[in-house]
Amino acid sequence: MIKPSAISGFPEWLPQEKYYEQQILDRIRKVYELHGYTPLETAAVEKLKILASKGVVDKELFLLNRHGEQSSSKELALHFDLTVPLARYVAQNYGKLTFPFKRYQIQKVWRGERPQKGRFREFYQADIDCVMENELPVYYEAQMPRIIQEIMNSLDIQAQIQVSHRKILIGYYLGLEITQEQIPHLLREVDKLDKIGKEKVQELLHKQGLSQEKAEQSLELAHIKGSFSEVQPKLQALSQHPLFLEGLQELQEFDSYLSDLSPQQLTYNFAIARGLDYYTGAILETFVIGHEKWGSVCSGGRYDDLASNFIKRNLPGVGVSIGLSRLIHLLLETQKPDLSRQSPSQVLLALPSQEDLLKVDQIAQELRSQGYPCEIYHQSQALNKQIRYADRKGIPFILFPHRYTRQEPLVELKRLADGEQKELPLDSKELQLFLES
Amino acid sequence: MIKPSAISGFPEWLPQEKYYEQQILDRIRKVYELHGYTPLETAAVEKLKILASKGVVDKELFLLNRHGEQSSSKELALHFDLTVPLARYVAQNYGKLTFPFKRYQIQKVWRGERPQKGRFREFYQADIDCVMENELPVYYEAQMPRIIQEIMNSLDIQAQIQVSHRKILIGYYLGLEITQEQIPHLLREVDKLDKIGKEKVQELLHKQGLSQEKAEQSLELAHIKGSFSEVQPKLQALSQHPLFLEGLQELQEFDSYLSDLSPQQLTYNFAIARGLDYYTGAILETFVIGHEKWGSVCSGGRYDDLASNFIKRNLPGVGVSIGLSRLIHLLLETQKPDLSRQSPSQVLLALPSQEDLLKVDQIAQELRSQGYPCEIYHQSQALNKQIRYADRKGIPFILFPHRYTRQEPLVELKRLADGEQKELPLDSKELQLFLES
Repeated sequence: MIKPSAISGFPEWLPQEKYYEQQILDRIRKVYELHGYTPLETAAVEKLKILASKGVVDKELFLLNRHGEQSSSKELALHFDLTVPLARYVAQNYGKLTFPFKRYQIQKVWRGERPQKGRFREFYQADIDCVMENELPVYYEAQMPRIIQEIMNSLDIQAQIQVSHRKILIGYYLGLEITQEQIPHLLREVDKLDKIGKEKVQELLHKQGLSQEKAEQSLELAHIKGSFSEVQPKLQALSQHPLFLEGLQELQEFDSYLSDLSPQQLTYNFAIARGLDYYTGAILETFVIGHEKWGSVCSGGRYDDLASNFIKRNLPGVGVSIGLSRLIHLLLETQKPDLSRQSPSQVLLALPSQEDLLKVDQIAQELRSQGYPCEIYHQSQALNKQIRYADRKGIPFILFPHRYTRQEPLVELKRLADGEQKELPLDSKELQLFLES
Repeated sequence: MIKPSAISGFPEWLPQEKYYEQQILDRIRKVYELHGYTPLETAAVEKLKILASKGVVDKELFLLNRHGEQSSSKELALHFDLTVPLARYVAQNYGKLTFPFKRYQIQKVWRGERPQKGRFREFYQADIDCVMENELPVYYEAQMPRIIQEIMNSLDIQAQIQVSHRKILIGYYLGLEITQEQIPHLLREVDKLDKIGKEKVQELLHKQGLSQEKAEQSLELAHIKGSFSEVQPKLQALSQHPLFLEGLQELQEFDSYLSDLSPQQLTYNFAIARGLDYYTGAILETFVIGHEKWGSVCSGGRYDDLASNFIKRNLPGVGVSIGLSRLIHLLLETQKPDLSRQSPSQVLLALPSQEDLLKVDQIAQELRSQGYPCEIYHQSQALNKQIRYADRKGIPFILFPHRYTRQEPLVELKRLADGEQKELPLDSKELQLFLES
């Protein structure tokens, strides 16, 4: 006998939690598809040299080897995000894709972190990216906040998207005569502002070789926050570097497409830098209002040469990634959602006696042909036992077949939430209305 | 520059193929849900001792180890099917589940086979299982062929389900005084009948220690095929072993629930033995008619002690597994399905000039709020270029916004398949009817 137990970092849901997660996945997918993004799936496995190509060797990878083989000679590993696989896929299938290539990808990713509480080693990401050839209009960057807010609306989540811009950040640092080489390190340190505070970041910048003055100056930008009309004059006063001005202009266009989002839904925050090197335009993070300490639940931005390690083509793109597992844990912990459903069944068909089975089976088939998920109770037991089963599984209706005949297909339906009971013909509009009430 | 290339055994789809696969996944899921099966997902990773518990150490496993670690000290591996994870999950969460526990599970599985053409090392399975406590009525076994045929119908596939029964097979062998110990080996050899023929199987049985006479006798059962009314008298004449008779009676009940399936959809074939040890009742395999050489696309059966390695409970169940990757390859190769769609967009909104962008964006939002996936062409280029893009992506309609104003929301819609063009108000029933035509 082997006692089964959970593996640290590999969370699994109970049926009612998975049912809930599935509703959320479906809603996200629906919004992605409404915007013309097509489903894509890449293999869970990549060659190690592909995963390492973006300088991410420090990521903790899960390497694969076949049972019985000593070394992982093929150098395969599980993917740790969906961005590197996208870059590889686009390069590999370049001639067969139609650009702009817009795909969504909802898959598990794996990180070989040390097992510790609250750290996932397997989790879901739900990404979209729009990849263009040569030129990507700013309009596509502006689509991202809108899509995110449509998803948040559909999930009844109040979220704020915080936007920054790489050209503004980098232009500003260049204007301070900080060198190109220093900037990636700088961005990674600035990105820690909200976590460790201004003093610590200044210290880190000083360690990177910036003078005390430059370190202070470089953080001035990070204090600028607010709506576009609030941040614009402050930014204009801050730098005249051409890249900075270019970024400011792009951000103005970006904002012009989003006038329907409120300041609560969309704000600008130049403390946001995003650690990853490949971003080149608008970047964003998304916080659930009131639960900012959970961190960003959806991040992304524009990049200009995602696939340049794999192909000599100019393929700019923009994308965001929803940290789905984190988001669902946040919702479960903070929103206490209704977790009563353990079954997609809308109706439990009671089985008064074993002899009724064929009749009840007919009724079930009729309900299914009308599109209603349903199931038959497995035994002719006391009715209160059957009702209790429906209740435990969160099946909203129970059907009693006593009066049903082929000639007169009358059934009795009881709504468990309030006990309301009706006798209705199986093929009637009234029955449909009651089942959907 | 790293040239990206496919990894042998890890197939990936082009967008139009994935779009097609997604439609099939959705239809399978819909039928599973109509029958009250609830979604479940288990971690991709299991402890090695769990995977090995069913005597499947000969399966080629992919072991995991963290980058930088020499040995896979945690002894984790990717799951190779969804049945062992189900058994482990049910035992682990036994006290929290409501029985009958009916779940569907559509996930990738991995097998560390030697890379060779046509062999998948990563592929999809789409399983359902119904797990009961103590007693599982035969009715649930009979649900499996019906669910499979509903799925096949929804996919326009003509398939035949071939049913056999473990009690009949084992009872028959016991009646021949073949020992309990020999029977599992026997079943595995008999299962090869359709592949290697009668003589070779007899030879193998002889090698297993059966006399020439017993080997011949034991194959007599395997010749019995046909509808239940055809096979029943032949079976009755063949053996009087109590287990055999018990199986025959169960199969009669099984068949009584399936009178609506034609002999082409459901037949009995006692050459089917299923190699796996855990089956104890009805077993089945499913062949696409005309493409039997592809092998079974959906297999399964009843088992009585799936989780007995993990928990001291009597948990009988029944389940089937669709070999989804194989099925989709079969469909792509033999049915030449329509692969024109590379996008869920129902409408491409043409962009006559850059100044129209905000207006066109408004129209897109209105279409989405009506539930129609759509996208805007990315540039104000010549209209024939924009039409060509819709055509390449398989977007069925193109919308011209020239006449649209907020006050009079008229748009022109063109159906690309036949060139039919209509001018319609954006919020009209006529527009919906045209878009759904």
